[in-house]
Amino acid sequence: MKKLAIIGLGLIGSSIAHAARRGKLAGEIAGYDASADVQERAGTVGFCDTLHADIGGAVKDAELVILCAPVGAYKDIAAAIAPHLAPGAILSDVGSVKGAVIRDLGPHVPRDVHFIPAHPIAGTEFSGPEAGFASLFDGRWAILTPVPGSDPAAVEKLKAFWQGLGSQVDVMDSAHHDLVLAITSHLPHLIAYNIVGTAHDLEQVTEGEVIKYSASGFRDFTRIAASDPTMWRDVFLNNREAVLEVLGRFNEDLSQLQRAVHNGDGQTLFDLFTRTRAIRRAIIDIGQDTAAPNFGRNKP
Amino acid sequence: MKKLAIIGLGLIGSSIAHAARRGKLAGEIAGYDASADVQERAGTVGFCDTLHADIGGAVKDAELVILCAPVGAYKDIAAAIAPHLAPGAILSDVGSVKGAVIRDLGPHVPRDVHFIPAHPIAGTEFSGPEAGFASLFDGRWAILTPVPGSDPAAVEKLKAFWQGLGSQVDVMDSAHHDLVLAITSHLPHLIAYNIVGTAHDLEQVTEGEVIKYSASGFRDFTRIAASDPTMWRDVFLNNREAVLEVLGRFNEDLSQLQRAVHNGDGQTLFDLFTRTRAIRRAIIDIGQDTAAPNFGRNKP
Repeated sequence: MKKLAIIGLGLIGSSIAHAARRGKLAGEIAGYDASADVQERAGTVGFCDTLHADIGGAVKDAELVILCAPVGAYKDIAAAIAPHLAPGAILSDVGSVKGAVIRDLGPHVPRDVHFIPAHPIAGTEFSGPEAGFASLFDGRWAILTPVPGSDPAAVEKLKAFWQGLGSQVDVMDSAHHDLVLAITSHLPHLIAYNIVGTAHDLEQVTEGEVIKYSASGFRDFTRIAASDPTMWRDVFLNNREAVLEVLGRFNEDLSQLQRAVHNGDGQTLFDLFTRTRAIRRAIIDIGQDTAAPNFGRNKP
Repeated sequence: MKKLAIIGLGLIGSSIAHAARRGKLAGEIAGYDASADVQERAGTVGFCDTLHADIGGAVKDAELVILCAPVGAYKDIAAAIAPHLAPGAILSDVGSVKGAVIRDLGPHVPRDVHFIPAHPIAGTEFSGPEAGFASLFDGRWAILTPVPGSDPAAVEKLKAFWQGLGSQVDVMDSAHHDLVLAITSHLPHLIAYNIVGTAHDLEQVTEGEVIKYSASGFRDFTRIAASDPTMWRDVFLNNREAVLEVLGRFNEDLSQLQRAVHNGDGQTLFDLFTRTRAIRRAIIDIGQDTAAPNFGRNKP
Protein backbone atom coordinates (compact mmCIF):
# COMPACT_ATOMS: atom_id res chain seq x y z
CA MET A 1 0.00 0.00 0.00
CA LYS A 2 1.05 3.56 -0.51
CA LYS A 3 0.23 5.00 2.88
CA LEU A 4 -0.37 3.54 6.32
CA ALA A 5 -1.49 5.85 9.13
CA ILE A 6 -0.89 4.99 12.77
CA ILE A 7 -2.80 7.01 15.36
CA GLY A 8 -1.19 6.57 18.77
CA LEU A 9 2.55 5.90 18.90
CA GLY A 10 3.00 3.79 22.02
CA LEU A 11 4.09 0.17 22.34
CA ILE A 12 1.66 -1.26 19.79
CA GLY A 13 1.68 1.64 17.33
CA SER A 14 5.44 1.77 17.24
CA SER A 15 5.69 -2.03 16.92
CA ILE A 16 3.32 -1.98 13.94
CA ALA A 17 5.50 0.68 12.32
CA HIS A 18 8.69 -1.30 12.95
CA ALA A 19 7.13 -4.52 11.64
CA ALA A 20 5.55 -2.80 8.62
CA ARG A 21 8.91 -1.34 7.72
CA ARG A 22 10.59 -4.71 8.17
CA GLY A 23 7.99 -6.29 5.88
CA LYS A 24 8.05 -3.38 3.41
CA LEU A 25 4.25 -3.21 3.74
CA ALA A 26 3.76 0.51 3.08
CA GLY A 27 5.36 3.21 0.97
CA GLU A 28 4.76 5.78 3.68
CA ILE A 29 4.16 5.22 7.38
CA ALA A 30 2.43 8.30 8.76
CA GLY A 31 2.15 8.84 12.51
CA TYR A 32 0.23 11.00 14.93
CA ASP A 33 0.00 11.09 18.72
CA ALA A 34 -2.20 13.35 20.81
CA SER A 35 0.75 13.88 23.15
CA ALA A 36 3.37 16.25 21.75
CA ASP A 37 5.94 14.62 24.02
CA VAL A 38 5.19 11.13 22.70
CA GLN A 39 5.24 12.39 19.12
CA GLU A 40 8.62 14.02 19.66
CA ARG A 41 10.03 10.85 21.19
CA ALA A 42 8.60 8.85 18.26
CA GLY A 43 10.49 11.20 15.96
CA THR A 44 13.69 10.49 17.86
CA VAL A 45 13.23 6.73 17.52
CA GLY A 46 12.33 7.27 13.88
CA PHE A 47 9.88 4.50 13.00
CA CYS A 48 7.54 6.78 11.00
CA ASP A 49 8.26 8.33 7.63
CA THR A 50 6.06 11.32 8.40
CA LEU A 51 4.78 12.75 11.68
CA HIS A 52 1.81 15.09 11.56
CA ALA A 53 0.90 17.97 13.82
CA ASP A 54 -2.76 17.57 12.82
CA ILE A 55 -4.53 14.23 12.89
CA GLY A 56 -6.31 14.97 9.59
CA GLY A 57 -3.00 15.22 7.77
CA ALA A 58 -1.90 11.87 9.17
CA VAL A 59 -4.90 9.94 7.83
CA LYS A 60 -5.30 11.86 4.56
CA ASP A 61 -4.92 9.52 1.55
CA ALA A 62 -4.06 6.56 3.80
CA GLU A 63 -5.26 3.17 2.57
CA LEU A 64 -5.16 1.82 6.09
CA VAL A 65 -5.65 3.78 9.31
CA ILE A 66 -4.99 1.98 12.59
CA LEU A 67 -6.01 3.44 15.93
CA CYS A 68 -3.47 2.47 18.58
CA ALA A 69 -4.64 4.75 21.40
CA PRO A 70 -6.42 3.67 24.60
CA VAL A 71 -9.97 2.72 23.61
CA GLY A 72 -11.43 5.46 25.81
CA ALA A 73 -10.05 7.99 23.33
CA TYR A 74 -11.56 6.40 20.22
CA LYS A 75 -14.76 8.40 20.08
CA ASP A 76 -12.98 11.74 19.89
CA ILE A 77 -10.40 10.40 17.46
CA ALA A 78 -13.13 9.07 15.19
CA ALA A 79 -14.92 12.40 15.12
CA ALA A 80 -11.66 14.19 14.30
CA ILE A 81 -10.51 11.90 11.49
CA ALA A 82 -13.85 11.09 9.83
CA PRO A 83 -13.86 14.07 7.44
CA HIS A 84 -10.31 13.29 6.31
CA LEU A 85 -10.57 9.56 5.60
CA ALA A 86 -10.05 8.59 1.97
CA PRO A 87 -12.89 6.80 0.15
CA GLY A 88 -12.16 3.07 0.15
CA ALA A 89 -9.78 3.31 3.11
CA ILE A 90 -9.76 0.68 5.83
CA LEU A 91 -10.24 1.98 9.37
CA SER A 92 -9.00 -0.49 11.97
CA ASP A 93 -7.64 -0.51 15.50
CA VAL A 94 -5.79 -2.64 18.05
CA GLY A 95 -8.04 -2.23 21.09
CA SER A 96 -8.35 -5.06 23.62
CA VAL A 97 -12.16 -4.81 23.58
CA LYS A 98 -14.20 -4.92 20.43
CA GLY A 99 -17.91 -4.50 21.26
CA ALA A 100 -17.39 -1.06 22.78
CA VAL A 101 -15.11 -0.06 19.92
CA ILE A 102 -17.81 -0.89 17.40
CA ARG A 103 -20.30 1.04 19.54
CA ASP A 104 -18.04 4.09 19.79
CA LEU A 105 -16.44 4.16 16.35
CA GLY A 106 -19.20 2.76 14.18
CA PRO A 107 -21.42 5.85 14.03
CA HIS A 108 -18.50 8.02 12.91
CA VAL A 109 -17.32 5.86 10.04
CA PRO A 110 -18.11 7.37 6.61
CA ARG A 111 -20.13 5.06 4.36
CA ASP A 112 -17.30 4.72 1.85
CA VAL A 113 -14.77 3.60 4.48
CA HIS A 114 -14.26 -0.05 5.48
CA PHE A 115 -14.44 -0.42 9.25
CA ILE A 116 -12.74 -3.60 10.48
CA PRO A 117 -11.84 -3.72 14.19
CA ALA A 118 -8.84 -5.84 15.11
CA HIS A 119 -6.84 -6.93 18.14
CA PRO A 120 -3.30 -8.31 18.12
CA ILE A 121 -2.77 -10.72 21.03
CA ALA A 122 0.71 -9.47 21.81
CA GLY A 123 2.36 -6.94 24.04
CA THR A 124 4.79 -6.38 26.84
CA GLU A 125 4.53 -4.63 30.19
CA PHE A 126 6.35 -1.62 28.73
CA SER A 127 4.71 1.45 27.20
CA GLY A 128 5.64 4.33 24.96
CA PRO A 129 7.27 4.85 21.56
CA GLU A 130 10.61 3.45 22.73
CA ALA A 131 9.01 0.14 23.77
CA GLY A 132 8.07 -1.11 20.31
CA PHE A 133 9.99 -3.64 18.23
CA ALA A 134 9.51 -5.37 14.90
CA SER A 135 9.13 -8.94 16.15
CA LEU A 136 6.39 -8.28 18.70
CA PHE A 137 3.71 -9.92 16.56
CA ASP A 138 5.77 -12.82 15.20
CA GLY A 139 3.91 -16.06 15.76
CA ARG A 140 1.21 -14.40 17.87
CA TRP A 141 -2.45 -14.23 16.92
CA ALA A 142 -4.35 -11.20 15.64
CA ILE A 143 -8.13 -11.33 15.82
CA LEU A 144 -10.28 -9.44 13.32
CA THR A 145 -13.91 -8.75 14.23
CA PRO A 146 -15.59 -7.51 11.05
CA VAL A 147 -18.96 -5.81 11.47
CA PRO A 148 -22.07 -6.93 9.56
CA GLY A 149 -21.62 -5.88 5.96
CA SER A 150 -17.82 -5.66 6.07
CA ASP A 151 -16.37 -6.02 2.57
CA PRO A 152 -14.69 -9.47 2.32
CA ALA A 153 -11.93 -8.06 0.11
CA ALA A 154 -11.10 -5.43 2.72
CA VAL A 155 -11.06 -8.11 5.43
CA GLU A 156 -8.66 -10.14 3.29
CA LYS A 157 -6.45 -7.11 2.80
CA LEU A 158 -6.28 -6.43 6.53
CA LYS A 159 -5.64 -10.11 7.17
CA ALA A 160 -2.72 -10.06 4.74
CA PHE A 161 -1.41 -6.93 6.45
CA TRP A 162 -1.32 -8.62 9.86
CA GLN A 163 0.27 -11.71 8.35
CA GLY A 164 2.86 -9.37 6.89
CA LEU A 165 3.54 -8.10 10.41
CA GLY A 166 4.28 -11.69 11.45
CA SER A 167 0.92 -12.65 12.96
CA GLN A 168 -1.40 -15.55 12.54
CA VAL A 169 -4.94 -14.26 11.96
CA ASP A 170 -8.35 -15.37 13.22
CA VAL A 171 -11.73 -13.84 12.48
CA MET A 172 -14.56 -13.89 14.99
CA ASP A 173 -17.61 -12.10 16.29
CA SER A 174 -16.89 -9.11 18.56
CA ALA A 175 -19.00 -10.43 21.45
CA HIS A 176 -17.14 -13.74 21.44
CA HIS A 177 -13.83 -11.90 21.24
CA ASP A 178 -14.73 -9.90 24.33
CA LEU A 179 -15.59 -13.02 26.29
CA VAL A 180 -12.47 -14.92 25.18
CA LEU A 181 -10.26 -11.98 26.06
CA ALA A 182 -12.05 -11.48 29.37
CA ILE A 183 -10.74 -14.86 30.51
CA THR A 184 -7.37 -14.95 28.73
CA SER A 185 -6.36 -11.36 29.35
CA HIS A 186 -8.65 -9.06 31.29
CA LEU A 187 -9.26 -11.29 34.30
CA PRO A 188 -5.54 -12.22 34.58
CA HIS A 189 -4.69 -8.52 34.58
CA LEU A 190 -7.35 -7.69 37.17
CA ILE A 191 -6.14 -10.52 39.42
CA ALA A 192 -2.51 -9.52 39.02
CA TYR A 193 -3.21 -5.87 39.80
CA ASN A 194 -5.26 -6.97 42.78
CA ILE A 195 -2.72 -9.31 44.36
CA VAL A 196 0.06 -6.77 43.99
CA GLY A 197 -2.19 -4.25 45.68
CA THR A 198 -3.02 -6.68 48.49
CA ALA A 199 0.65 -7.44 49.08
CA HIS A 200 1.42 -3.73 49.12
CA ASP A 201 -1.25 -3.01 51.73
CA LEU A 202 -0.61 -5.88 54.19
CA GLU A 203 0.44 -4.47 57.53
CA GLN A 204 2.17 -7.58 58.86
CA VAL A 205 4.57 -7.98 55.93
CA THR A 206 6.74 -5.09 54.78
CA GLU A 207 7.01 -4.04 51.17
CA GLY A 208 10.73 -4.75 51.42
CA GLU A 209 10.00 -8.37 52.31
CA VAL A 210 7.52 -8.76 49.48
CA ILE A 211 10.13 -7.47 47.07
CA LYS A 212 13.05 -9.52 48.44
CA TYR A 213 11.19 -12.82 48.44
CA SER A 214 9.23 -12.22 45.25
CA ALA A 215 11.03 -14.98 43.33
CA SER A 216 8.79 -17.47 45.12
CA GLY A 217 5.92 -16.64 42.76
CA PHE A 218 4.83 -13.07 43.39
CA ARG A 219 7.21 -11.49 40.87
CA ASP A 220 5.41 -13.16 37.96
CA PHE A 221 2.28 -11.17 38.78
CA THR A 222 4.15 -7.90 39.02
CA ARG A 223 5.06 -8.01 35.33
CA ILE A 224 1.44 -7.94 34.25
CA ALA A 225 0.60 -5.47 37.01
CA ALA A 226 3.16 -3.08 35.49
CA SER A 227 1.11 -2.72 32.32
CA ASP A 228 -0.12 0.67 31.14
CA PRO A 229 -2.70 2.07 33.62
CA THR A 230 -4.67 4.17 31.13
CA MET A 231 -5.03 1.37 28.63
CA TRP A 232 -6.17 -1.06 31.32
CA ARG A 233 -8.58 1.36 32.97
CA ASP A 234 -10.23 1.73 29.57
CA VAL A 235 -10.37 -2.04 29.05
CA PHE A 236 -12.28 -2.56 32.29
CA LEU A 237 -14.58 0.39 31.64
CA ASN A 238 -15.39 -1.02 28.20
CA ASN A 239 -15.70 -4.76 28.77
CA ARG A 240 -17.60 -4.65 32.02
CA GLU A 241 -20.16 -7.38 31.42
CA ALA A 242 -17.77 -10.06 30.18
CA VAL A 243 -15.22 -9.22 32.88
CA LEU A 244 -17.81 -9.41 35.64
CA GLU A 245 -19.08 -12.70 34.23
CA VAL A 246 -15.70 -14.45 34.27
CA LEU A 247 -14.81 -12.79 37.57
CA GLY A 248 -17.97 -14.31 39.02
CA ARG A 249 -16.83 -17.74 37.88
CA PHE A 250 -13.35 -17.13 39.24
CA ASN A 251 -14.82 -16.15 42.61
CA GLU A 252 -17.00 -19.26 42.77
CA ASP A 253 -14.01 -21.46 42.03
CA LEU A 254 -11.87 -19.62 44.55
CA SER A 255 -14.52 -20.11 47.24
CA GLN A 256 -14.40 -23.85 46.61
CA LEU A 257 -10.62 -23.79 46.82
CA GLN A 258 -10.79 -21.72 50.00
CA ARG A 259 -13.09 -24.34 51.52
CA ALA A 260 -10.69 -27.10 50.47
CA VAL A 261 -7.82 -25.30 52.21
CA HIS A 262 -9.99 -24.63 55.26
CA ASN A 263 -11.15 -28.26 55.48
CA GLY A 264 -7.74 -29.73 54.77
CA ASP A 265 -9.16 -31.42 51.67
CA GLY A 266 -5.91 -32.51 50.06
CA GLN A 267 -7.56 -34.54 47.32
CA THR A 268 -9.45 -31.56 45.87
CA LEU A 269 -6.25 -29.50 45.92
CA PHE A 270 -4.18 -32.26 44.34
CA ASP A 271 -6.75 -32.90 41.61
CA LEU A 272 -6.86 -29.24 40.56
CA PHE A 273 -3.08 -28.84 40.73
CA THR A 274 -2.68 -31.86 38.46
CA ARG A 275 -5.28 -30.75 35.93
CA THR A 276 -3.71 -27.34 35.39
CA ARG A 277 -0.33 -28.72 34.28
CA ALA A 278 -1.72 -29.94 30.97
CA ILE A 279 -2.75 -26.45 29.85
CA ARG A 280 0.78 -25.11 30.17
CA ARG A 281 2.09 -28.04 28.17
CA ALA A 282 -0.42 -27.29 25.40
CA ILE A 283 0.56 -23.60 25.32
CA ILE A 284 4.22 -24.54 24.93
CA ASP A 285 3.40 -27.16 22.30
CA ILE A 286 1.74 -24.59 20.00
CA GLY A 287 4.60 -22.14 20.46
CA GLN A 288 2.79 -19.51 22.52
CA ASP A 289 5.31 -19.69 25.37
CA THR A 290 8.84 -20.83 26.03
CA ALA A 291 9.54 -24.28 27.45
CA ALA A 292 12.53 -22.93 29.38
CA PRO A 293 12.14 -23.10 33.18
CA ASN A 294 11.14 -19.78 34.75
CA PHE A 295 10.55 -18.31 31.26
CA GLY A 296 14.28 -18.70 30.71
CA ARG A 297 15.29 -16.07 33.26
CA ASN A 298 17.02 -18.36 35.77
CA LYS A 299 20.32 -16.59 35.81
CA PRO A 300 20.01 -13.80 38.38
CA MET B 1 32.25 -30.86 55.47
CA LYS B 2 32.88 -34.52 54.97
CA LYS B 3 29.38 -35.73 54.21
CA LEU B 4 26.18 -34.03 53.11
CA ALA B 5 22.98 -36.08 52.94
CA ILE B 6 20.08 -35.09 50.71
CA ILE B 7 16.77 -36.81 51.33
CA GLY B 8 14.49 -36.30 48.32
CA LEU B 9 16.11 -35.94 44.91
CA GLY B 10 13.71 -33.71 43.00
CA LEU B 11 14.22 -30.17 41.68
CA ILE B 12 15.53 -28.69 44.94
CA GLY B 13 17.46 -31.71 46.19
CA SER B 14 19.23 -32.16 42.88
CA SER B 15 19.96 -28.43 42.63
CA ILE B 16 21.52 -28.43 46.10
CA ALA B 17 23.71 -31.34 45.02
CA HIS B 18 24.77 -29.60 41.79
CA ALA B 19 25.50 -26.33 43.61
CA ALA B 20 27.33 -28.08 46.48
CA ARG B 21 29.50 -29.86 43.98
CA ARG B 22 30.16 -26.61 42.11
CA GLY B 23 31.15 -24.95 45.40
CA LYS B 24 33.13 -27.98 46.62
CA LEU B 25 31.12 -27.83 49.84
CA ALA B 26 31.17 -31.53 50.77
CA GLY B 27 33.53 -34.45 50.44
CA GLU B 28 30.64 -36.81 49.87
CA ILE B 29 27.13 -36.02 48.68
CA ALA B 30 24.85 -38.86 49.74
CA GLY B 31 21.35 -39.17 48.31
CA TYR B 32 18.15 -41.03 49.03
CA ASP B 33 14.68 -40.90 47.53
CA ALA B 34 11.64 -42.87 48.64
CA SER B 35 10.83 -43.49 44.98
CA ALA B 36 13.05 -46.15 43.41
CA ASP B 37 12.33 -44.62 40.02
CA VAL B 38 13.47 -41.15 41.10
CA GLN B 39 16.55 -42.60 42.74
CA GLU B 40 17.47 -44.48 39.57
CA ARG B 41 17.01 -41.34 37.46
CA ALA B 42 19.14 -39.41 39.96
CA GLY B 43 21.82 -42.01 39.45
CA THR B 44 21.65 -41.49 35.71
CA VAL B 45 22.06 -37.71 36.08
CA GLY B 46 24.86 -38.37 38.56
CA PHE B 47 24.75 -35.47 41.00
CA CYS B 48 25.28 -37.64 44.11
CA ASP B 49 28.47 -39.43 45.07
CA THR B 50 26.54 -42.18 46.82
CA LEU B 51 22.94 -43.33 46.54
CA HIS B 52 21.49 -45.40 49.34
CA ALA B 53 18.84 -48.08 49.29
CA ASP B 54 18.15 -47.43 52.96
CA ILE B 55 17.56 -43.95 54.34
CA GLY B 56 19.62 -44.71 57.45
CA GLY B 57 22.71 -45.36 55.36
CA ALA B 58 22.25 -42.03 53.59
CA VAL B 59 22.25 -39.94 56.75
CA LYS B 60 24.82 -41.99 58.71
CA ASP B 61 27.87 -39.85 59.61
CA ALA B 62 26.50 -36.86 57.67
CA GLU B 63 27.33 -33.46 59.14
CA LEU B 64 24.36 -31.93 57.38
CA VAL B 65 21.12 -33.67 56.46
CA ILE B 66 18.65 -31.75 54.30
CA LEU B 67 15.11 -32.94 53.75
CA CYS B 68 13.98 -32.05 50.23
CA ALA B 69 10.75 -34.06 50.12
CA PRO B 70 7.19 -32.67 50.20
CA VAL B 71 6.56 -31.47 53.76
CA GLY B 72 3.71 -33.96 54.19
CA ALA B 73 6.32 -36.74 54.21
CA TYR B 74 8.56 -35.19 56.89
CA LYS B 75 7.06 -36.93 59.91
CA ASP B 76 7.75 -40.40 58.56
CA ILE B 77 11.17 -39.43 57.31
CA ALA B 78 12.09 -38.00 60.70
CA ALA B 79 11.06 -41.17 62.49
CA ALA B 80 13.10 -43.24 60.04
CA ILE B 81 16.32 -41.22 60.19
CA ALA B 82 16.36 -40.23 63.87
CA PRO B 83 18.22 -43.34 65.11
CA HIS B 84 20.90 -42.90 62.43
CA LEU B 85 21.72 -39.20 62.79
CA ALA B 86 25.27 -38.47 63.95
CA PRO B 87 25.77 -36.54 67.20
CA GLY B 88 26.41 -32.88 66.38
CA ALA B 89 24.82 -33.18 62.93
CA ILE B 90 22.63 -30.42 61.54
CA LEU B 91 19.16 -31.49 60.43
CA SER B 92 17.62 -29.00 58.02
CA ASP B 93 15.08 -28.90 55.21
CA VAL B 94 13.84 -26.78 52.30
CA GLY B 95 10.09 -26.83 52.95
CA SER B 96 7.93 -23.87 51.92
CA VAL B 97 6.25 -23.79 55.33
CA LYS B 98 8.12 -23.69 58.60
CA GLY B 99 5.68 -23.75 61.52
CA ALA B 100 4.28 -27.14 60.53
CA VAL B 101 7.76 -28.48 59.85
CA ILE B 102 8.85 -27.57 63.36
CA ARG B 103 5.68 -29.16 64.72
CA ASP B 104 6.21 -32.38 62.72
CA LEU B 105 9.98 -32.78 62.88
CA GLY B 106 10.78 -31.25 66.26
CA PRO B 107 9.64 -34.16 68.44
CA HIS B 108 11.78 -36.62 66.47
CA VAL B 109 15.05 -34.72 66.63
CA PRO B 110 17.62 -36.34 68.95
CA ARG B 111 18.91 -34.00 71.65
CA ASP B 112 22.46 -34.04 70.27
CA VAL B 113 21.35 -32.99 66.76
CA HIS B 114 20.97 -29.33 65.67
CA PHE B 115 17.57 -28.77 64.10
CA ILE B 116 17.52 -25.66 61.87
CA PRO B 117 14.64 -25.42 59.39
CA ALA B 118 15.35 -23.51 56.19
CA HIS B 119 13.66 -22.44 52.97
CA PRO B 120 15.37 -21.35 49.76
CA ILE B 121 13.23 -18.84 47.85
CA ALA B 122 14.00 -20.34 44.48
CA GLY B 123 12.55 -22.87 42.11
CA THR B 124 11.09 -23.48 38.71
CA GLU B 125 7.85 -25.02 37.50
CA PHE B 126 9.72 -28.26 36.68
CA SER B 127 10.06 -31.23 39.01
CA GLY B 128 12.24 -34.29 39.34
CA PRO B 129 15.95 -35.15 39.44
CA GLU B 130 16.51 -33.96 35.87
CA ALA B 131 15.17 -30.48 36.67
CA GLY B 132 17.92 -29.34 39.01
CA PHE B 133 20.86 -27.09 38.11
CA ALA B 134 23.74 -25.51 39.98
CA SER B 135 22.77 -21.86 39.59
CA LEU B 136 19.20 -22.16 40.89
CA PHE B 137 20.03 -20.42 44.17
CA ASP B 138 22.43 -17.79 42.83
CA GLY B 139 21.35 -14.37 44.04
CA ARG B 140 18.13 -15.68 45.58
CA TRP B 141 17.30 -15.60 49.28
CA ALA B 142 17.36 -18.52 51.67
CA ILE B 143 15.50 -18.06 54.96
CA LEU B 144 16.60 -19.90 58.10
CA THR B 145 14.10 -20.24 60.94
CA PRO B 146 16.06 -21.53 63.95
CA VAL B 147 14.04 -22.91 66.84
CA PRO B 148 14.44 -21.63 70.41
CA GLY B 149 17.75 -22.94 71.71
CA SER B 150 19.35 -23.45 68.30
CA ASP B 151 23.13 -23.39 68.59
CA PRO B 152 24.42 -20.11 67.05
CA ALA B 153 27.51 -21.87 65.67
CA ALA B 154 25.33 -24.42 63.87
CA VAL B 155 23.15 -21.61 62.46
CA GLU B 156 26.31 -19.89 61.19
CA LYS B 157 27.49 -23.12 59.61
CA LEU B 158 24.19 -23.61 57.79
CA LYS B 159 24.21 -19.96 56.74
CA ALA B 160 27.68 -20.39 55.25
CA PHE B 161 26.49 -23.52 53.45
CA TRP B 162 23.65 -21.65 51.74
CA GLN B 163 25.95 -18.81 50.86
CA GLY B 164 28.23 -21.42 49.34
CA LEU B 165 25.29 -22.55 47.20
CA GLY B 166 24.99 -18.98 45.89
CA SER B 167 22.23 -17.66 48.15
CA GLN B 168 21.80 -14.60 50.27
CA VAL B 169 20.62 -15.63 53.75
CA ASP B 170 18.06 -14.16 56.15
CA VAL B 171 17.07 -15.45 59.57
CA MET B 172 13.57 -15.04 60.92
CA ASP B 173 10.88 -16.50 63.13
CA SER B 174 8.94 -19.40 61.61
CA ALA B 175 5.54 -17.75 62.11
CA HIS B 176 6.66 -14.63 60.30
CA HIS B 177 8.17 -16.74 57.54
CA ASP B 178 4.86 -18.48 57.03
CA LEU B 179 2.98 -15.20 56.76
CA VAL B 180 5.53 -13.63 54.40
CA LEU B 181 5.49 -16.68 52.15
CA ALA B 182 1.70 -16.86 52.28
CA ILE B 183 1.56 -13.55 50.43
CA THR B 184 4.67 -13.83 48.25
CA SER B 185 4.27 -17.45 47.23
CA HIS B 186 1.31 -19.46 48.51
CA LEU B 187 -1.45 -17.02 47.56
CA PRO B 188 0.05 -16.39 44.09
CA HIS B 189 0.12 -20.14 43.50
CA LEU B 190 -3.45 -20.61 44.73
CA ILE B 191 -4.66 -17.79 42.51
CA ALA B 192 -2.76 -19.10 39.51
CA TYR B 193 -4.09 -22.64 39.96
CA ASN B 194 -7.57 -21.21 40.38
CA ILE B 195 -7.62 -19.01 37.29
CA VAL B 196 -6.25 -21.79 35.12
CA GLY B 197 -8.98 -24.04 36.48
CA THR B 198 -11.66 -21.41 35.82
CA ALA B 199 -10.47 -20.93 32.25
CA HIS B 200 -10.47 -24.67 31.73
CA ASP B 201 -14.04 -25.03 32.97
CA LEU B 202 -15.71 -22.12 31.13
CA GLU B 203 -18.33 -23.45 28.77
CA GLN B 204 -18.45 -20.43 26.46
CA VAL B 205 -14.74 -20.39 25.63
CA THR B 206 -12.98 -23.50 24.38
CA GLU B 207 -9.73 -24.75 25.85
CA GLY B 208 -8.22 -24.33 22.38
CA GLU B 209 -9.05 -20.63 22.42
CA VAL B 210 -7.61 -20.17 25.89
CA ILE B 211 -4.40 -21.81 24.73
CA LYS B 212 -4.14 -19.93 21.42
CA TYR B 213 -4.71 -16.50 22.88
CA SER B 214 -2.79 -17.10 26.10
CA ALA B 215 -0.06 -14.59 25.24
CA SER B 216 -2.45 -11.84 26.30
CA GLY B 217 -1.72 -12.53 29.97
CA PHE B 218 -3.04 -15.96 30.82
CA ARG B 219 0.13 -17.87 29.93
CA ASP B 220 2.05 -16.20 32.77
CA PHE B 221 -0.26 -17.88 35.28
CA THR B 222 0.11 -21.28 33.67
CA ARG B 223 3.80 -21.42 34.53
CA ILE B 224 3.13 -21.25 38.25
CA ALA B 225 0.08 -23.49 37.86
CA ALA B 226 2.40 -26.15 36.41
CA SER B 227 4.27 -26.52 39.69
CA ASP B 228 4.48 -29.84 41.49
CA PRO B 229 0.99 -30.90 42.71
CA THR B 230 2.14 -32.95 45.70
CA MET B 231 4.43 -30.25 47.02
CA TRP B 232 1.74 -27.62 46.69
CA ARG B 233 -1.02 -29.73 48.19
CA ASP B 234 1.22 -30.14 51.24
CA VAL B 235 1.95 -26.41 51.40
CA PHE B 236 -1.75 -25.55 51.60
CA LEU B 237 -2.47 -28.32 54.08
CA ASN B 238 0.35 -27.06 56.30
CA ASN B 239 0.03 -23.27 56.15
CA ARG B 240 -3.71 -23.05 56.36
CA GLU B 241 -4.11 -20.17 58.78
CA ALA B 242 -1.71 -17.77 57.08
CA VAL B 243 -3.03 -18.64 53.60
CA LEU B 244 -6.63 -18.11 54.66
CA GLU B 245 -5.68 -14.81 56.27
CA VAL B 246 -4.03 -13.34 53.16
CA LEU B 247 -6.72 -14.89 50.96
CA GLY B 248 -9.31 -13.03 53.02
CA ARG B 249 -7.49 -9.78 52.35
CA PHE B 250 -7.19 -10.60 48.66
CA ASN B 251 -10.93 -11.27 48.48
CA GLU B 252 -11.78 -7.99 50.20
CA ASP B 253 -9.60 -6.08 47.77
CA LEU B 254 -11.04 -7.96 44.81
CA SER B 255 -14.58 -7.12 45.92
CA GLN B 256 -13.64 -3.43 45.90
CA LEU B 257 -12.16 -3.80 42.45
CA GLN B 258 -15.23 -5.68 41.27
CA ARG B 259 -17.39 -2.80 42.49
CA ALA B 260 -15.15 -0.32 40.69
CA VAL B 261 -15.57 -2.26 37.43
CA HIS B 262 -19.31 -2.58 38.02
CA ASN B 263 -19.71 1.12 38.75
CA GLY B 264 -17.41 2.26 35.96
CA ASP B 265 -15.17 3.91 38.55
CA GLY B 266 -12.18 4.64 36.33
CA GLN B 267 -10.32 6.66 38.93
CA THR B 268 -10.13 3.78 41.42
CA LEU B 269 -8.91 1.46 38.67
CA PHE B 270 -6.34 3.95 37.40
CA ASP B 271 -5.01 4.65 40.89
CA LEU B 272 -4.44 0.97 41.67
CA PHE B 273 -2.93 0.26 38.25
CA THR B 274 -0.48 3.12 38.77
CA ARG B 275 0.51 2.11 42.29
CA THR B 276 1.41 -1.45 41.32
CA ARG B 277 4.03 -0.41 38.75
CA ALA B 278 6.46 0.74 41.44
CA ILE B 279 6.70 -2.69 43.04
CA ARG B 280 7.90 -4.31 39.82
CA ARG B 281 10.52 -1.61 39.42
CA ALA B 282 11.79 -2.29 42.96
CA ILE B 283 11.99 -6.05 42.31
CA ILE B 284 14.05 -5.45 39.19
CA ASP B 285 16.25 -2.91 40.98
CA ILE B 286 17.33 -5.45 43.63
CA GLY B 287 18.01 -8.09 41.00
CA GLN B 288 15.14 -10.47 41.79
CA ASP B 289 13.76 -10.35 38.26
CA THR B 290 14.85 -9.46 34.77
CA ALA B 291 14.19 -6.01 33.32
CA ALA B 292 13.70 -7.51 29.86
CA PRO B 293 10.16 -7.11 28.45
CA ASN B 294 8.04 -10.26 28.79
CA PHE B 295 10.73 -11.83 31.00
CA GLY B 296 12.96 -11.79 27.89
CA ARG B 297 10.93 -14.37 25.99
CA ASN B 298 9.69 -12.12 23.18
CA LYS B 299 10.95 -14.20 20.35
CA PRO B 300 8.31 -16.83 19.63
